[in-house]
Amino acid sequence: MSIKLNCDLGEGFGSWKMGLDSAAMPHIDQANIACGFHAGDPLWMIKTLALAAEHNVEVGAHPAYPDLVGFGRRSMKCSAEEIQSMVQYQMSALDGLARCQGLEMTYVKPHGALYNDMMSDPFVRQNIMQAVASFYRPVRLVLQATPASNDHKKEAQALGIDVAFEAFADRCYDDDGRLLARSKEGAVHTREKMLAQVQQLIDTGTITTVSGIELTLDVDTLCVHGDNEAGVLAIEAIKNIITK
Amino acid sequence: MSIKLNCDLGEGFGSWKMGLDSAAMPHIDQANIACGFHAGDPLWMIKTLALAAEHNVEVGAHPAYPDLVGFGRRSMKCSAEEIQSMVQYQMSALDGLARCQGLEMTYVKPHGALYNDMMSDPFVRQNIMQAVASFYRPVRLVLQATPASNDHKKEAQALGIDVAFEAFADRCYDDDGRLLARSKEGAVHTREKMLAQVQQLIDTGTITTVSGIELTLDVDTLCVHGDNEAGVLAIEAIKNIITK
Amino acid sequence: MSIKLNCDLGEGFGSWKMGLDSAAMPHIDQANIACGFHAGDPLWMIKTLALAAEHNVEVGAHPAYPDLVGFGRRSMKCSAEEIQSMVQYQMSALDGLARCQGLEMTYVKPHGALYNDMMSDPFVRQNIMQAVASFYRPVRLVLQATPASNDHKKEAQALGIDVAFEAFADRCYDDDGRLLARSKEGAVHTREKMLAQVQQLIDTGTITTVSGIELTLDVDTLCVHGDNEAGVLAIEAIKNIITK
Amino acid sequence: MSIKLNCDLGEGFGSWKMGLDSAAMPHIDQANIACGFHAGDPLWMIKTLALAAEHNVEVGAHPAYPDLVGFGRRSMKCSAEEIQSMVQYQMSALDGLARCQGLEMTYVKPHGALYNDMMSDPFVRQNIMQAVASFYRPVRLVLQATPASNDHKKEAQALGIDVAFEAFADRCYDDDGRLLARSKEGAVHTREKMLAQVQQLIDTGTITTVSGIELTLDVDTLCVHGDNEAGVLAIEAIKNIITK
Repeated sequence: MSIKLNCDLGEGFGSWKMGLDSAAMPHIDQANIACGFHAGDPLWMIKTLALAAEHNVEVGAHPAYPDLVGFGRRSMKCSAEEIQSMVQYQMSALDGLARCQGLEMTYVKPHGALYNDMMSDPFVRQNIMQAVASFYRPVRLVLQATPASNDHKKEAQALGIDVAFEAFADRCYDDDGRLLARSKEGAVHTREKMLAQVQQLIDTGTITTVSGIELTLDVDTLCVHGDNEAGVLAIEAIKNIITK
Repeated sequence: MSIKLNCDLGEGFGSWKMGLDSAAMPHIDQANIACGFHAGDPLWMIKTLALAAEHNVEVGAHPAYPDLVGFGRRSMKCSAEEIQSMVQYQMSALDGLARCQGLEMTYVKPHGALYNDMMSDPFVRQNIMQAVASFYRPVRLVLQATPASNDHKKEAQALGIDVAFEAFADRCYDDDGRLLARSKEGAVHTREKMLAQVQQLIDTGTITTVSGIELTLDVDTLCVHGDNEAGVLAIEAIKNIITK
Repeated sequence: MSIKLNCDLGEGFGSWKMGLDSAAMPHIDQANIACGFHAGDPLWMIKTLALAAEHNVEVGAHPAYPDLVGFGRRSMKCSAEEIQSMVQYQMSALDGLARCQGLEMTYVKPHGALYNDMMSDPFVRQNIMQAVASFYRPVRLVLQATPASNDHKKEAQALGIDVAFEAFADRCYDDDGRLLARSKEGAVHTREKMLAQVQQLIDTGTITTVSGIELTLDVDTLCVHGDNEAGVLAIEAIKNIITK
Repeated sequence: MSIKLNCDLGEGFGSWKMGLDSAAMPHIDQANIACGFHAGDPLWMIKTLALAAEHNVEVGAHPAYPDLVGFGRRSMKCSAEEIQSMVQYQMSALDGLARCQGLEMTYVKPHGALYNDMMSDPFVRQNIMQAVASFYRPVRLVLQATPASNDHKKEAQALGIDVAFEAFADRCYDDDGRLLARSKEGAVHTREKMLAQVQQLIDTGTITTVSGIELTLDVDTLCVHGDNEAGVLAIEAIKNIITK
């Protein structure tokens, strides 16, 4: 089993901080770095890349809708060319800054509403895939592991791009393999349940949904959270389970 | 004589247009493309790159202070790392988008107040040079041709970067080799004087200052303007002089 | 008959211009002034207010989603308090600047996607109405005149606010009284059809839909367009019909 | 003695927090509320106004240069009309939102670089004063108390506006009555020195400069800081001195 840990980082903006990047970075494998559209600015990106380099962490672009005040969490109805161009711009910005530090951006994981739209709206997904496919060199696209992962893989293959699938350690799944809405009770696991979910995924490649059904998920990477102390402690615990 | 023509392009933003890019592009050699900080957005950048590709025009980054409402024309007192990171971010964004179209960004020419500050403030110049020097591959920095060009070349050489120098076809120079302030009478040449200035530069490598002094300027490229019809017509006339 | 003419104005941003404000202003009754979120900036607002004052034109706020690059044309999924606060902020900004010139902002007409969402999504409409209702003094809300206008009037009355309804001179209506999507043939009227539509509205209080049905619309104001020369000429022709 | 305590508040932006507003608000007299240009957004403004209302705190606008990523701390070279319009826009936005909560904005205190430029550059000061003078109703302008306060008062009187002067509790003054640059040793007082400085100001109306000179300062309000726990504790201690 070789599940990686990925974490959203570099989500400060100017004088505003967010997340315990220095605390989280030593424990993760992949840093999803904000590119300036929902968070991050040139200086934060460079500092986050330097921190990733220090801890030998793989770096990926974390592009978003252009919505700083909404932190990229508000779905925006964009055209095909708007989606493609905003994704490529953000990939390019991070790619170049990474190279300036001798690093290679290897993947793209959309952020917030752009991520959710990618999973629920074929139009958005198609255009994100197209942006990745027409990037000047191959990079992976990270999608959520769901029962539809095989279909998504085929969509990606048709465009000649590689994909990776992520699961959420701390989130309860509904029976369709989607995340239970945050508004629902039990949507976010307790630490105990979270660790049990990770253990089960490692052991059996499955998760248990809210109603008790076992779902098989093909998972390459686990999304963990470094925006608070409990989250950082959880990362360490999850890492222990995975590397055992 | 191999003086090139460079022009600021891609300076629309979203629904707002600026400049006659399609009219100017066929006549120029180098397109300075806005990178989103004073103008330009991902879509405008991609469209401008495509237009440059169509006309076989060399492309360069045109980075600016982060000031859309001020069109990058207002000097901002930035720190060393702010200048370096904003320049590298904008270079990276254009570099990646250019590569996605099979193009190569070959140079950087700062815009507006960042350009002016580069010429007048050694601190700003030093940090722009540092940004270019630590870019992941060599690109040229374009500065204004002045009597200080040799010193600027040495500063650049100390950091291992190439420079190119530009002159302005339509602007009157003061005796120090700087552009006469726009507020002064005669600051912007008539079409006739502009063409005479170009002819003299081609023939003798000199310009005549506001008080009649002849100044030698080592010029690699001439900045021309495509933001109005007269400007575009002037480009054609200048091109005729240069290629004669 | 006392139908007014309203027009979106002040939609430049910094160095970017949009619309023929000076040409349109003399012919309209109500200027919907951009407040900085989709277009407009403090300076444009002040200049547009001055132009309105010069021509004795009523001024209204034209608030939008915070999306300059998308010109407020992209729907954004916002929370109740986000909608209320963004509308009140923009109303306040224009209100104060108007007062500084001795003018009174008398109405609010949402822009672009916020307008469309107001008409199609009760949640958005409710929150816009709430923002207007809790403004510190009474101002009217402008909605689109549709067969649902009576319901909308009741919603407004429940909150104690006044409403006005607008029709579009140049747009073809579908049988539900909505604007025919711009992607459909005949969505935008020719000049001839536009003037006929206005004439019919003045004479009979009806419009004829795409399939030939007559719909009664209770209309207080007509939206006209000043963003191109044909539009400005149309305003004059419409004005002639109305004031005849 | 009736020195007030003023504090910069509402300096979050979207998902980003800054400052311990809830902890500071109960102890201060005047809340300088960010207006969206360096920090703050409509929602933060409304929440901060509500908090001020709860604690019966006077509210003022805290306008800044349009520079979110730089937190308004970078001087920007703006034109007269740019300064005037940006100040009036921000005043208007806060004024309206305050009124919506039944509050009255009574003063303006510029933020960061705009404040520093106001104190050091007569052109900037003149245009800020002009913006306040042409606001639709009288509000006070807060400037730094310095040996030039009398001159500033005369400038303000010439335009018919009221001013108030503030001192800094925690900052060491140079012999010209300016704040010792933060880069200099001893620029920021220890808690002990800060309280002594306040005590002296209350008792004698003077402060002691870095070289030991006693300067008389006519002070209406003290600027205190609520952005960290030590700052909040200091506010309480200062309040004790003042109200004793």
